[in-house]
Amino acid sequence: MKNNDISFFFNPKSIAVIGASPVSGKLSHVIMNSLKEIGYPGAIYPVNPKYESIDGMECYQSVADIKANVDVAILCIPASTVLGAMKDVVTKKVEGAIIVSAGFKETGKDGAEIEEKLKKISNETGIRIMGPNCLGIFDNISKIDTFFVLRERVKRPPAGGLSILSQSGSFAGTIMDELSAEGLGVAKIINYGNRVDVGESDCLEYIAEDKSTKVVGLYMESVDDGKRFIEAARRCAAKKPVFAIKVGRHEAGMSAAKSHTGAIAGRYEIYSAAFKKAGIIEVRGYSEFLDACKVLSKHGSSNGKRVLVITDGGGMGASIADACSDFGLQVVEPSQKIKETLASKLPPFCAVGNPIDLTGSVSDKDYVMVLKEAMSEYDLAIVMVLWGPPLLTDRLIKMLKDASVEIGKPVIICSPGGEYSRKRNRMFEEAGLPVFSSPEEAARAAAVLAKNRGAGR
Amino acid sequence: MKNNDISFFFNPKSIAVIGASPVSGKLSHVIMNSLKEIGYPGAIYPVNPKYESIDGMECYQSVADIKANVDVAILCIPASTVLGAMKDVVTKKVEGAIIVSAGFKETGKDGAEIEEKLKKISNETGIRIMGPNCLGIFDNISKIDTFFVLRERVKRPPAGGLSILSQSGSFAGTIMDELSAEGLGVAKIINYGNRVDVGESDCLEYIAEDKSTKVVGLYMESVDDGKRFIEAARRCAAKKPVFAIKVGRHEAGMSAAKSHTGAIAGRYEIYSAAFKKAGIIEVRGYSEFLDACKVLSKHGSSNGKRVLVITDGGGMGASIADACSDFGLQVVEPSQKIKETLASKLPPFCAVGNPIDLTGSVSDKDYVMVLKEAMSEYDLAIVMVLWGPPLLTDRLIKMLKDASVEIGKPVIICSPGGEYSRKRNRMFEEAGLPVFSSPEEAARAAAVLAKNRGAGR
Repeated sequence: MKNNDISFFFNPKSIAVIGASPVSGKLSHVIMNSLKEIGYPGAIYPVNPKYESIDGMECYQSVADIKANVDVAILCIPASTVLGAMKDVVTKKVEGAIIVSAGFKETGKDGAEIEEKLKKISNETGIRIMGPNCLGIFDNISKIDTFFVLRERVKRPPAGGLSILSQSGSFAGTIMDELSAEGLGVAKIINYGNRVDVGESDCLEYIAEDKSTKVVGLYMESVDDGKRFIEAARRCAAKKPVFAIKVGRHEAGMSAAKSHTGAIAGRYEIYSAAFKKAGIIEVRGYSEFLDACKVLSKHGSSNGKRVLVITDGGGMGASIADACSDFGLQVVEPSQKIKETLASKLPPFCAVGNPIDLTGSVSDKDYVMVLKEAMSEYDLAIVMVLWGPPLLTDRLIKMLKDASVEIGKPVIICSPGGEYSRKRNRMFEEAGLPVFSSPEEAARAAAVLAKNRGAGR
Repeated sequence: MKNNDISFFFNPKSIAVIGASPVSGKLSHVIMNSLKEIGYPGAIYPVNPKYESIDGMECYQSVADIKANVDVAILCIPASTVLGAMKDVVTKKVEGAIIVSAGFKETGKDGAEIEEKLKKISNETGIRIMGPNCLGIFDNISKIDTFFVLRERVKRPPAGGLSILSQSGSFAGTIMDELSAEGLGVAKIINYGNRVDVGESDCLEYIAEDKSTKVVGLYMESVDDGKRFIEAARRCAAKKPVFAIKVGRHEAGMSAAKSHTGAIAGRYEIYSAAFKKAGIIEVRGYSEFLDACKVLSKHGSSNGKRVLVITDGGGMGASIADACSDFGLQVVEPSQKIKETLASKLPPFCAVGNPIDLTGSVSDKDYVMVLKEAMSEYDLAIVMVLWGPPLLTDRLIKMLKDASVEIGKPVIICSPGGEYSRKRNRMFEEAGLPVFSSPEEAARAAAVLAKNRGAGR
């Protein structure tokens, strides 16, 4: 009876905002503004018995009073009034509800009981429910934004191929803001919160078929239906790269967890194994999740884990090599033949092992020469650019981008430093090369591309 | 015969620049400018038989021609001419030489032979030599800057209590630039390169007694005299916090290393054990080194590893808890008594475990209340501020700083996000609170303060 296809959530012709308010700063007002500012093309129907009109739009006493069809209802009303409102929503034959309100399972027994009843409504009537306690949907393609976070505080990212599925609202909002600052293109961000009905499995099934999504990032604290999840994840991962984080690995601070450490650790292992089984790339922290967003948006994955490190500073290059080994990448030396070629084209004080150290005498063309001569033996490269050497010019940025395209293998830039470097990091990003500001981040991102988890991590 | 006290390097009344050149961009010209721009108060004597004057200063044919005393000579001449010049330097009774020139051991047999002869000169005559292949000394207190990296590309940090000792020039230059961008105060940065004479042990002995240095960061690829190093490190660490990185942990890419993995791993273990024995905090990567600079400059170490995590976003707080456990910190729950106090002062939907989740309804004063009520049971706090919640104002920054001073325990700020957050991160820094933009960085920095290495790291 329930429709497993949730695509209507991402293509509604009309949205009712239940609990709409003209008061600036109220959740519902922020949501109405979010919808307007992203340019939602359908009809918006404010619903609130207290008002006759809101911001110049007719306001309805109840969903039942809206004459036209309503595809999706957004509920921004107190938890205690949600069940009553849902009756009207069901009667109106709304396809799906996004309940952004908090005050449910997360606050205790009373809230949990309301949630049970919501689940029952969904199961009995077939209406799909996203939430409660969620931000809902940000869709850069079909122009939907139900996120009640102010745009002046949490910026919206440009359109692109990355989609994020998140159980946590704070994670979804923070990563959205961070992606905006990094200029990374996003298709959709979906936050389903307490997940009374719609969850990661539904979303993975939908996103697998979604043409606008090229890469998928998944944030999980728990899973509702393990079997269905693995099946959905596998199907999605077969079509596009999927990376995932499972948070609550240690269940730190939960006294219940502490007395059952073995069991808990086992539970985490199950997630890790499930990700592997489904072909999902596992990441282990917010930073690595962000690395994965960056590197998978700009490169497909690499064919293997043989990495060439090119640097213009020996010590900093050694730090990359250390980090690469930590993350399970293979920092192998080039063949004798390639070493001889490189040595013949570089000054005698350059080191032609791995890392290849071009030293402070480096000029732009040296980097490109090494990439072209040596990459036949490697799966990907980390190119460290320290901008101190006086012969380096901004032309290097485009030259590296072109070389990366020509060799057809991932090139990751690592450029730590202060103001001068940070400005150039923006230029690398604008040129479409993923850039990281520390050896460890660059190596971690390279390991994500190599779909490789180092031993002991 | 050799003077173990190298303090004269940091207080020279006169410096001769051998190989001085009027040509902009030449190493020696950059060094002369560096000395001028930092405001070196002593006399500078350019030496080069090719010129009679450089930038309006009298230029000497040889060091011997300088009538006044010369305390320190900086050699910026080709490696092949260094031995000849050193004869004059010794005759002139110069106390110490900084040889910035490259082209020695690092380039092969010929260079290594010159280096052996330099070592002999130092041993026989007692002259102290820094380098070769080094940047030398940056001293914000006595105003010496021999770094031949252009100021427009690599900025100089403000004065402060942090000193860095580095074998690697690229590491020293990059961290200098990064510290400048972070606004962190630096006393001295010393890079001794190929370390023919002066090395980490001499520097540690000197820096232990140096009143301007409050915190010491050490970068090592190898050690010259293990016994002396441990003794010097122990004495220094007894007086001020010392943290260290050993690079080349895996010796990745060295074919020789690959066939002796066991032996190599053993070698790294020796460093790790030596750091522990000497009371040095070990860090394992460039990023963690930078974290340590930041957090140890702003806080002394904490008394233990019990950490309280306060957040306004549940999911993001859980990521901090995960990372804290990864780094061996103890994320324990508050006592029942404190839980009850907190619960009585917070809305019912807040979670009063650890993390304490203030939720999107948070206001400035909630953070301060929790710190004051709960910190008696903890050694340090990580306070996550997600700026989305509309009631949060910029006043929070000073309020947290004041609370941190009042409770007298380290408070680390974690504030990920985009433009809005990043601007406020600057404000946190200006207020003197260490701020990190990801849960993992904040947890790693907290672990540095707790002088604690998590199991398995």
